[in-house]
Amino acid sequence: MASIQDIGLSAAINLMSAFAFLFAFAMLRLQPVNDRVYFPKWYLKGIRGSPTRSRGIMNRFVNLDWTTYVKFLNWMPAALQMPELELIEHAGLDSAVYIRIYLLGLKMFVPITLLAFGVLVPVNWTGETLENIDDLTFSNVDKLSISNVPPGSPRFWAHITMTYVFTIWTCYTLYMEYKTVAIMRLRHLAAESRRPDQLTVLVRNVPPDSDESVNEHVEHFFCVNHPDHYLCHQVVYNANDLAKLVAQRKAMQNWLTYYENKYERKPTDRPTTKTGYGGFWGTTVDAIDFYTSKMEVLAEKEAAEREKIMNDPKAIMPAAFVSFKSRWGTAVCAQTQQCHNPTIWLTEWAPEPRDVFWDNLAIPYVELSIRRLLTTVALFFLIFCFMIPIAFVQSLANLEGIQKVLSFLKPVIEMKTVKSVIQGFLPGIALKIFLIILPTILMTMSQIEGYTSLSYLDRRSAEKSFWFIIVNVFLGSIITGTAFQQLKSFLEQPPTEIPKTVGVSIPMKATIFITYIMVDGWAGIAAEILRVVPLVVFHLKNTFLVKTEQDRQQAMDPGHLDFATSEPRIQFYFLLGLVYAAVAPILLPFIIVFFAFSYVVFRHQVINVYDQKYESGARYWPDVHRRLIICLIISQLLMMGLLSTKKLAKVTALLLPQLILTFWFNRYCAGRFESAFSKFPLQEAMVKDTLEKATEPNLNLKEYLKDAYVHPVFKGKDFDRPRVVDEEESNPLVPTRRTSQVTSRYNSEASSSTTATPVANKNTGSPGSM
Amino acid sequence: MASIQDIGLSAAINLMSAFAFLFAFAMLRLQPVNDRVYFPKWYLKGIRGSPTRSRGIMNRFVNLDWTTYVKFLNWMPAALQMPELELIEHAGLDSAVYIRIYLLGLKMFVPITLLAFGVLVPVNWTGETLENIDDLTFSNVDKLSISNVPPGSPRFWAHITMTYVFTIWTCYTLYMEYKTVAIMRLRHLAAESRRPDQLTVLVRNVPPDSDESVNEHVEHFFCVNHPDHYLCHQVVYNANDLAKLVAQRKAMQNWLTYYENKYERKPTDRPTTKTGYGGFWGTTVDAIDFYTSKMEVLAEKEAAEREKIMNDPKAIMPAAFVSFKSRWGTAVCAQTQQCHNPTIWLTEWAPEPRDVFWDNLAIPYVELSIRRLLTTVALFFLIFCFMIPIAFVQSLANLEGIQKVLSFLKPVIEMKTVKSVIQGFLPGIALKIFLIILPTILMTMSQIEGYTSLSYLDRRSAEKSFWFIIVNVFLGSIITGTAFQQLKSFLEQPPTEIPKTVGVSIPMKATIFITYIMVDGWAGIAAEILRVVPLVVFHLKNTFLVKTEQDRQQAMDPGHLDFATSEPRIQFYFLLGLVYAAVAPILLPFIIVFFAFSYVVFRHQVINVYDQKYESGARYWPDVHRRLIICLIISQLLMMGLLSTKKLAKVTALLLPQLILTFWFNRYCAGRFESAFSKFPLQEAMVKDTLEKATEPNLNLKEYLKDAYVHPVFKGKDFDRPRVVDEEESNPLVPTRRTSQVTSRYNSEASSSTTATPVANKNTGSPGSM
Repeated sequence: MASIQDIGLSAAINLMSAFAFLFAFAMLRLQPVNDRVYFPKWYLKGIRGSPTRSRGIMNRFVNLDWTTYVKFLNWMPAALQMPELELIEHAGLDSAVYIRIYLLGLKMFVPITLLAFGVLVPVNWTGETLENIDDLTFSNVDKLSISNVPPGSPRFWAHITMTYVFTIWTCYTLYMEYKTVAIMRLRHLAAESRRPDQLTVLVRNVPPDSDESVNEHVEHFFCVNHPDHYLCHQVVYNANDLAKLVAQRKAMQNWLTYYENKYERKPTDRPTTKTGYGGFWGTTVDAIDFYTSKMEVLAEKEAAEREKIMNDPKAIMPAAFVSFKSRWGTAVCAQTQQCHNPTIWLTEWAPEPRDVFWDNLAIPYVELSIRRLLTTVALFFLIFCFMIPIAFVQSLANLEGIQKVLSFLKPVIEMKTVKSVIQGFLPGIALKIFLIILPTILMTMSQIEGYTSLSYLDRRSAEKSFWFIIVNVFLGSIITGTAFQQLKSFLEQPPTEIPKTVGVSIPMKATIFITYIMVDGWAGIAAEILRVVPLVVFHLKNTFLVKTEQDRQQAMDPGHLDFATSEPRIQFYFLLGLVYAAVAPILLPFIIVFFAFSYVVFRHQVINVYDQKYESGARYWPDVHRRLIICLIISQLLMMGLLSTKKLAKVTALLLPQLILTFWFNRYCAGRFESAFSKFPLQEAMVKDTLEKATEPNLNLKEYLKDAYVHPVFKGKDFDRPRVVDEEESNPLVPTRRTSQVTSRYNSEASSSTTATPVANKNTGSPGSM
Repeated sequence: MASIQDIGLSAAINLMSAFAFLFAFAMLRLQPVNDRVYFPKWYLKGIRGSPTRSRGIMNRFVNLDWTTYVKFLNWMPAALQMPELELIEHAGLDSAVYIRIYLLGLKMFVPITLLAFGVLVPVNWTGETLENIDDLTFSNVDKLSISNVPPGSPRFWAHITMTYVFTIWTCYTLYMEYKTVAIMRLRHLAAESRRPDQLTVLVRNVPPDSDESVNEHVEHFFCVNHPDHYLCHQVVYNANDLAKLVAQRKAMQNWLTYYENKYERKPTDRPTTKTGYGGFWGTTVDAIDFYTSKMEVLAEKEAAEREKIMNDPKAIMPAAFVSFKSRWGTAVCAQTQQCHNPTIWLTEWAPEPRDVFWDNLAIPYVELSIRRLLTTVALFFLIFCFMIPIAFVQSLANLEGIQKVLSFLKPVIEMKTVKSVIQGFLPGIALKIFLIILPTILMTMSQIEGYTSLSYLDRRSAEKSFWFIIVNVFLGSIITGTAFQQLKSFLEQPPTEIPKTVGVSIPMKATIFITYIMVDGWAGIAAEILRVVPLVVFHLKNTFLVKTEQDRQQAMDPGHLDFATSEPRIQFYFLLGLVYAAVAPILLPFIIVFFAFSYVVFRHQVINVYDQKYESGARYWPDVHRRLIICLIISQLLMMGLLSTKKLAKVTALLLPQLILTFWFNRYCAGRFESAFSKFPLQEAMVKDTLEKATEPNLNLKEYLKDAYVHPVFKGKDFDRPRVVDEEESNPLVPTRRTSQVTSRYNSEASSSTTATPVANKNTGSPGSM
């Protein structure tokens, strides 16, 4: 194990690199030209204008006021100053609660560290075991850990007591935090202004009906079963192909703009391009004409696809967004079962319109069930066997292999520099590439599982990532060998043996984790604030694509808090802290620095940079809480395993009640708070309804909800329904129309017919009428 | 292992005893005097009159028609003749579905047996392993089992294939049965006539309010949050003390009747009794006067207690039965969350009035949570350590111990007969007594857990009993040593070792289980039909207590299907069948006989004898299904363990997909069917509401529901509310009154007041006004 001097040196290096990042950040953020990279949030909010207007030419790009450079850390107090309520309003509850996780880490570990250093460090230090062992070179660091206490010593009572104290303190902070977040969420929901998702339910698995279209079927079902509350609905179109076309056209548009800009700057020289892929080969043509014509073709295709979707009954998916007249009616429909067959007419709260994941809205129940089975099996193999394909790639990447397969490359490979690059980097790169694409793999798996909202996908990916980290980073660092070998050896060991095997190795790995914390947790977080990639991308875009202020607005990439990858990373620090609290307290200060530093950095980012894709009202908190409990239980199990190797097998049983109580605490908290994150109580719904009725008695809800849940590619196009609210609107049995031409045709038919069912419409075979 | 001859002999003995029971039953049931013991159901239904009226004196008691004796088994076809729909109507869905479990056993195991005997028995028989072993005495029975196949033989492919076939067949029958039962339940609910529980919700944990009584608080809450649906409610009184007094008075009444009967038969001799406990000591007094005066004292106490409950605000528990105007409104309230705090205003479907377990209606959430934790821990110790106190009692019960502690008993103990009785029976009796009181212990534990209906208590007790049987009967028979020793050795073995240890022993234990099936499953079931205890009790009561026809009616004890004890017993037979299907198919025919015989016997009992305490509409089926899946998984694990000891470790991995698919099948079924047993879909509710509104437009629901959920001790007494339906009834804000005197007083006050809240009533401090 490394000595205190070694750790000190490593800390110095990492601190220096962290400060280097911070200094670079401080320099760059003061340059007006980077303003949109480091303060995009304020631009999106419309509070900050473009800095290029008012100042001189030089001042537009470079900041020449030297006093601002001296105070290069003054963003830190600024980040801390915004009060929480303002922060919620400014950045949303999701972000505000997310940075509370770091605060929770501080609340949890500062008292634990004080206690551990006050009680356990003296006990360990005076243990005098390691001094008597000659053949191993132990350092001062080890003398601070539990390894220095002789086996069977009564000193372990201190550790057992402290384990209980730490558990109780952890549970207390978790309970208080869960309570606070639940209250924040309820207050947020209560204070929220009217939003379409408050009044809308997502209905999936609408059963096919031979007599009626999906549209009519949904309408009749809800008119009959929620007669007093049903207002209107929107069917879901399968617009995945259309979305692809729209994305293609956008890319073309970028190229067109690029060449137009080029031409504008150099009007003498009309730019050319080649017709092949990427513009690298093929015949040379005039670039602006080429892309203009391509755009036209795409526009035609798009129009045809739009037409097809509107007229093809098969383009309507068996799902719908059903809106109600009141929050009470919505809460009722979202939380009850509609049909005796629980696999059809599935209702759930509609996600926010931005939050909908459109591709997954129409998966049948059986398929969903099979998809979940398959992804679970796949996840298992991904976690435990992920090293196998990588080892395979690594073995392929050795020089002899490459020479044999691709013999013509021989002269190149035998060059000295190429050789060393391949030998030195290729194996590492294979692993690195895998780790970079891992979040994408996990997200794809969650998408295959069939969840219907982005927030849910994020939550599920975070769960997968968490287990990957536990098995491959945590256990992988402690025990040598691949996860699959571990799994095999665990299956062949008694269950009581596993915590022992792992527990024994824990004190020895403290320095590894300390180094990890400094590299990933200190320098890594400092790199986060520098935003190198968005900085480069913004300046590239700004140079080649931006013509107007609006373009510049779109060239900004504010990014967002990526819950799916960053939350499991925090959990890993919690796990380290809990595991090492009673084993090697020396690790704790490093974790505290991580939490404090991250808190400031992310608070700054949330205030100035990130723009969240959706707002879920901190719905992820039950997951965070549950995973923290899992970390706590892992730490307890490992402590039991460790103690049972110290000639204290009987005493270890004393830690069993702690484990049971933690399980119980988890169940208690789930019963006490979890429903605040998944259900909407009728009392609250009624209060909001009553208030709304009193304040806005003449609100036209139907008009308000009309286009709320239209697929983004249809937004603002083709869906302009007549704004006239005719008398039929008050009769819920008359369907709401979407496309104007069908509506007007149908209206004339419906007015001459007394039946509520649009029979006439059926004959025309036009499902475009919603 | 026993030979086929041994098993044949044992089978002959058990068959004979079973036939002896059946013959005794056939004789006894034909005697008119036993008619009420063997056909109580028909008396309760009012279809069968007393046989003593029409015939001659001799014929009243003994059946002299010899032809009826010849056909002593003719009850069997009679039991099978009633069609299922008629059975459901006659005995209820609970009973009809319960006997389908036996039928399911037949459906599952008859094809499995045929396949096993067609494929596995020849494969095993020609394995020729045991013939080559000299030192062990194997019999023909073993040659039919998997033990006869040499390790590493390709013959095991037959077993692996068959395991898959058996699993698929089992899952198929389970799926079909779940589907059938779900449809039966839905049809039953749809066809059901109006019942109070369809329109009522049980509300628990009503929060205390300093300004309002529980009564007012409930009313205002539901008036505000369910304005269109709330109808009325009934608060729950804490009448546990009163119920005790009522039970005491009933016992007194029995004694009084006994002495009055005695006096009537012998008018010259006025009966006497003694005043001490049980009438064994104390001063001698006139019995009739003594009990009459005692009755009077009790009646006074009862009246005082009643008065106290009506006037003491503390006697009202924070729970209420809230009724709604429609099934739709009820379904909504039962399935949604009312308040943002999920531990108060808890709503759930009200159990049937007969099904309510009144003692548990008012347990706060935190207490409930702690109670569940404690009973879970207690159950764990009960299952794994139950042998410890019994071993302690057994060690106390040896002769030396007793002589030492109670030396004055020495001369008695040294008598030869006493000695042999103590040595031979005491240890066994200690165990037997424990096993007899076990269901009571488990039921008490379930009661402590705080469930609110008898049906739920039964289901939870069955769950506990199931695990007790798995651990102590199944594993206990296979592995020697107490359950606690097993647990310890399991913790110290690798997890893959456990199925091996158990799996290896399985083939050797086949004969033990065959004997068990014959004793418990054949003779035991035959004893069930004889009803010895109810027979004796009925004749005792009939002789001493019965005066009128009504008394005789009450003296009948029809009993009921005891789900909590008998369902886990059936599960044990399923487990045996599944475990031995591929290992020792010889066991299967015995199980088939059990299922067939039990089916006939219980069908007869359900038709002629049992009177269920409640009707839950087969709500227990998800539990039955889940436990069957557990049995299937246990059998798969043990098969894997067994095969891995046969030099087939690699092949065993082929059985892993089977395990995963079974888990998935369980989840799929739960998602597909379970909600039919816990939720009431809004569509169905709406259909029933609409139908009721059309057929009975003038129904006075409030009158109908008035006394539905009154504690049984109040039934028909003191709760005569005014029958007049005044105009206030239509105003939901005016509370419903219960006791007439308070109502009339309040009515005069309320009519002069315009506020809806009964302020005047609050001042008088009279919470009796409901």
